[in-house]
Amino acid sequence: MTHLNERAKGVYIISATPFLDNGAIDFNSIDGLIEFYVEKNVSGITILGMMGEAVKMSAQEAQAVMRHMIKRVAGRVPVVVGVSDPGLSNLTTLSKSSMDAGAAGVMITPVGGLKTDEHIYAYFAQTITALGNDIPVCYQDYPQATGVHISPDCFNRLVRDFDTMVMFKHEDCPGLGKLSRLRQAVIDDETLRRVSILAGNGGLYIPEELARGADGAMTGFAYPEMLVSVVDDYAKGNLSKAQDLFDIYLPLVRYEQQPGYGLAVRKEILRRRGALAHAATRAPGPKLSKVDHDELSGLLQRLEDRLKV
Amino acid sequence: MTHLNERAKGVYIISATPFLDNGAIDFNSIDGLIEFYVEKNVSGITILGMMGEAVKMSAQEAQAVMRHMIKRVAGRVPVVVGVSDPGLSNLTTLSKSSMDAGAAGVMITPVGGLKTDEHIYAYFAQTITALGNDIPVCYQDYPQATGVHISPDCFNRLVRDFDTMVMFKHEDCPGLGKLSRLRQAVIDDETLRRVSILAGNGGLYIPEELARGADGAMTGFAYPEMLVSVVDDYAKGNLSKAQDLFDIYLPLVRYEQQPGYGLAVRKEILRRRGALAHAATRAPGPKLSKVDHDELSGLLQRLEDRLKV
Amino acid sequence: MTHLNERAKGVYIISATPFLDNGAIDFNSIDGLIEFYVEKNVSGITILGMMGEAVKMSAQEAQAVMRHMIKRVAGRVPVVVGVSDPGLSNLTTLSKSSMDAGAAGVMITPVGGLKTDEHIYAYFAQTITALGNDIPVCYQDYPQATGVHISPDCFNRLVRDFDTMVMFKHEDCPGLGKLSRLRQAVIDDETLRRVSILAGNGGLYIPEELARGADGAMTGFAYPEMLVSVVDDYAKGNLSKAQDLFDIYLPLVRYEQQPGYGLAVRKEILRRRGALAHAATRAPGPKLSKVDHDELSGLLQRLEDRLKV
Amino acid sequence: MTHLNERAKGVYIISATPFLDNGAIDFNSIDGLIEFYVEKNVSGITILGMMGEAVKMSAQEAQAVMRHMIKRVAGRVPVVVGVSDPGLSNLTTLSKSSMDAGAAGVMITPVGGLKTDEHIYAYFAQTITALGNDIPVCYQDYPQATGVHISPDCFNRLVRDFDTMVMFKHEDCPGLGKLSRLRQAVIDDETLRRVSILAGNGGLYIPEELARGADGAMTGFAYPEMLVSVVDDYAKGNLSKAQDLFDIYLPLVRYEQQPGYGLAVRKEILRRRGALAHAATRAPGPKLSKVDHDELSGLLQRLEDRLKV
Repeated sequence: MTHLNERAKGVYIISATPFLDNGAIDFNSIDGLIEFYVEKNVSGITILGMMGEAVKMSAQEAQAVMRHMIKRVAGRVPVVVGVSDPGLSNLTTLSKSSMDAGAAGVMITPVGGLKTDEHIYAYFAQTITALGNDIPVCYQDYPQATGVHISPDCFNRLVRDFDTMVMFKHEDCPGLGKLSRLRQAVIDDETLRRVSILAGNGGLYIPEELARGADGAMTGFAYPEMLVSVVDDYAKGNLSKAQDLFDIYLPLVRYEQQPGYGLAVRKEILRRRGALAHAATRAPGPKLSKVDHDELSGLLQRLEDRLKV
Repeated sequence: MTHLNERAKGVYIISATPFLDNGAIDFNSIDGLIEFYVEKNVSGITILGMMGEAVKMSAQEAQAVMRHMIKRVAGRVPVVVGVSDPGLSNLTTLSKSSMDAGAAGVMITPVGGLKTDEHIYAYFAQTITALGNDIPVCYQDYPQATGVHISPDCFNRLVRDFDTMVMFKHEDCPGLGKLSRLRQAVIDDETLRRVSILAGNGGLYIPEELARGADGAMTGFAYPEMLVSVVDDYAKGNLSKAQDLFDIYLPLVRYEQQPGYGLAVRKEILRRRGALAHAATRAPGPKLSKVDHDELSGLLQRLEDRLKV
Repeated sequence: MTHLNERAKGVYIISATPFLDNGAIDFNSIDGLIEFYVEKNVSGITILGMMGEAVKMSAQEAQAVMRHMIKRVAGRVPVVVGVSDPGLSNLTTLSKSSMDAGAAGVMITPVGGLKTDEHIYAYFAQTITALGNDIPVCYQDYPQATGVHISPDCFNRLVRDFDTMVMFKHEDCPGLGKLSRLRQAVIDDETLRRVSILAGNGGLYIPEELARGADGAMTGFAYPEMLVSVVDDYAKGNLSKAQDLFDIYLPLVRYEQQPGYGLAVRKEILRRRGALAHAATRAPGPKLSKVDHDELSGLLQRLEDRLKV
Repeated sequence: MTHLNERAKGVYIISATPFLDNGAIDFNSIDGLIEFYVEKNVSGITILGMMGEAVKMSAQEAQAVMRHMIKRVAGRVPVVVGVSDPGLSNLTTLSKSSMDAGAAGVMITPVGGLKTDEHIYAYFAQTITALGNDIPVCYQDYPQATGVHISPDCFNRLVRDFDTMVMFKHEDCPGLGKLSRLRQAVIDDETLRRVSILAGNGGLYIPEELARGADGAMTGFAYPEMLVSVVDDYAKGNLSKAQDLFDIYLPLVRYEQQPGYGLAVRKEILRRRGALAHAATRAPGPKLSKVDHDELSGLLQRLEDRLKV
């Protein structure tokens, strides 16, 4: 299996985890969901992330989901596994079994409570050392969820000191300035490795992020084909075309991007599109009301109408 | 001067405070800015809010800005004054002098550190009592900035117990469910006063908020005419027309809505539109880089192009 | 096995989890540690709490530690198991297997992100319903760690609606007023069940908490015999004697109570007392420096000297 | 007036601000309070800090209190003025008028929302530059209140780059390791200026802080004479004597140190000692209940008894 590296680009879709209405894992839907993503021409799939409700699964369930998903993907695209955990031993156990199962790399968000760059550096130094030299790492920078803020300088120090740090999942917000600084740093210092930067935040700023040097997106928007087209058109220099398509989907991007609640929206869209059999989130989790459903229907109808034009 | 009441609707624009590049208040620009807002047919103006950088002014400056703005508005639309303050005496002083100067009411966000509904209730009970029976109050519900979370039940208790509580500025996010619950409560209990609800958050969810019962918007988007049209069209039942216009502006709404940084964007747009002589924020405050300026120019060009179609 | 009930009192010591220096669970030390606690005449033992580093263990490890500890206790005192988890299925799985293994009840802290009383109530209603009628519950009120703030009224509502809610672990801080209000509520309303209240926070306010109606302590101070004597003397009305003893230990109570870092102190004291073979915390976790060790030695020497007088 | 410098040591008491029961400033009590502090042989007085309820005063009131206090001190000890403010112009205005009135220096805590060392550095660089070369600065490191975390390296960078950075008010918690690192840095690099470090947190860790290199205390404990004796005895090498005295007061130190609520305790003790005419805090502020009063009386009685021995 090819390992993740600094040249990764395109759309790494963050996969939902399908559940039955009783909360059990819906393994049947996993197969359909993976096919859905692959058919949309994503460049990679990220599993067991925050959107994947990983913290609500047991370790055994996480392992089972990970193996099932990787097996179904069957090497068609690289799979990145979210392995963040309050405990280092849990993190390394899941990382190693993921790589053994065929993952391309792991995604790690800093543990809560890290207060300064030096604490963040120490945490990642300890963690990457424990993982060894063969597990590529994506740093998930999502301070809105973690409360942990890394400076560009500190991230670059990690890049310099650890060869396996190959990707930055950018979702600080506002974070456009940080992205520009990360890209400027490799211009200013040609000895600094240029790592892959994929943008999150539901794609809400993806045109700007691509223009500032992101290599693609890593997020879970329920219409991966939009992300794929936008990233592709940016790469080809068709900026207006990319922005035009983005704008059509933007009302929905914005709607899905509501923290917490948005996961229920996303799963419901995936259900309506046939990618999931059930929209259930695992307890405790958000649910859509009748009003929410109707509102969503209106937004989807408008999207359909605009796509026809 | 007419006092604010429960029937307030339309767009209460949140006014920026103009500064010179050296940080002094730009009183000349205040006049132009007020005219700009009034010409756009806003229904009211809210001054000295968070977007107005009120916490960075001295009490004397705040008083001077308040008087200057109210005088310039000259009764053409009601003016609401943000009076939130860690100290109750400061809050009441500014409230009373604002009303004396011709304000229609005051906007108050709970002081930081209130942990439960009972603490929030106690704080507002104390505050409203200190203000007396003649000062209409708008509750600003902005937990992303304050860390204070009120339940719909607690707000309704305040409405029941205090006649001067006449408006709710809605900007919890995700907050659509809360808005629906506030409106359902007055259906379920006809003895409960129906207060005005105006939506904030830069207008990012304004179509959904209007559909769920908001009476308008209270936010500072740099194109007030869009908000005015959307609110107006919703009131007339022209939902598609309203949404179509909203969608055209949405890329910019989203861009302005970046916390903190967005204020610099908003002031720069106001400057480019001639509503401000300088885009300066007061120190410490955000500034736009060359890249930011160019990015904004691209977004504004696209907006102009789409409006022509 | 006797189930936990409202009449629980005394000292429920929060057990550390022993680890080897390589991070593996030190099952040998578990036996010694349990004997240490039982010899000190604790009234109960709480395992897999925050101090027990439960979040850093895998589910299998947590199950193994739980079974080993309960087996070793062998019914001499009741065992309460910390089962808090972001996912409801994980929480119920561990709860049920704990009860099957002989636990007396479970301790639950609200999941992060609950913002108002109504959200907290809904979470516990869902959780307690999932647990069924046979699993006694202790509510852990530790907002400094969870960010979740419950009002006395909301907790009392849970007590009224759920018979299995039998205990309140009090560690809000400042929280003395809350404790008094909880006790006043059962005086004001004689239909309200009086539940057990055990105080946490390392015992830092235990004299005041006992005077205000706490039934004992649930914390992990490394000298359980002090807590046992203090609680016992309060129950007998020997207030001065209790306070005198508390004051002797207070410099150490204060020292152990430093958030995060204090766990390393506590385990080191337990090691020096022979209750643990290793003071290791699991990674990522705090470690003592040479200066810290010397400082601790000085404090322990002073304690020994004062106990001799 | 002598300016604050790196050699400052001893106890800089943080002064309360006296209010009448109606919330007005109690200027009469200011005189008595200042005399109380000076009689206790403090080395300096810090005014308008968090404990001084500065954020609840108007700018005019703050100016009046500052002038009145400095005039009453009349140069007998240096006065440090808390000038922290969300706005740079407010901060510089109060700083300059304080220095003109005879202050020895200013204390600044970083504005909220600074996320990384580089943001903290930029904020202080901008602020100190605005203050000019003649205003000595004390950095207040109180992340529990501000949410802003500085690393030792970043603080040392400020010391290197700005001659007016002369003091560090240490109240991070747990923060003993940080204090040791700050002191180690001047050993490791003899070109680094050694600044004054005064410890806060109500004195809860003052023996350990002095042993690790603090030059004294800057806090508001209501028995300044204890702090003065402890700091003095440490300086003379009488460590046991210092610790013995500290331990006698520790039950009260701990009690006063309850965040928020503790201010009401402190003012009530000052009132009982005759240093204030009224214990009132300004609204919104904490109040003591009957139970609180009785509890405090018990603690004070025990203190008195132990001091007699």
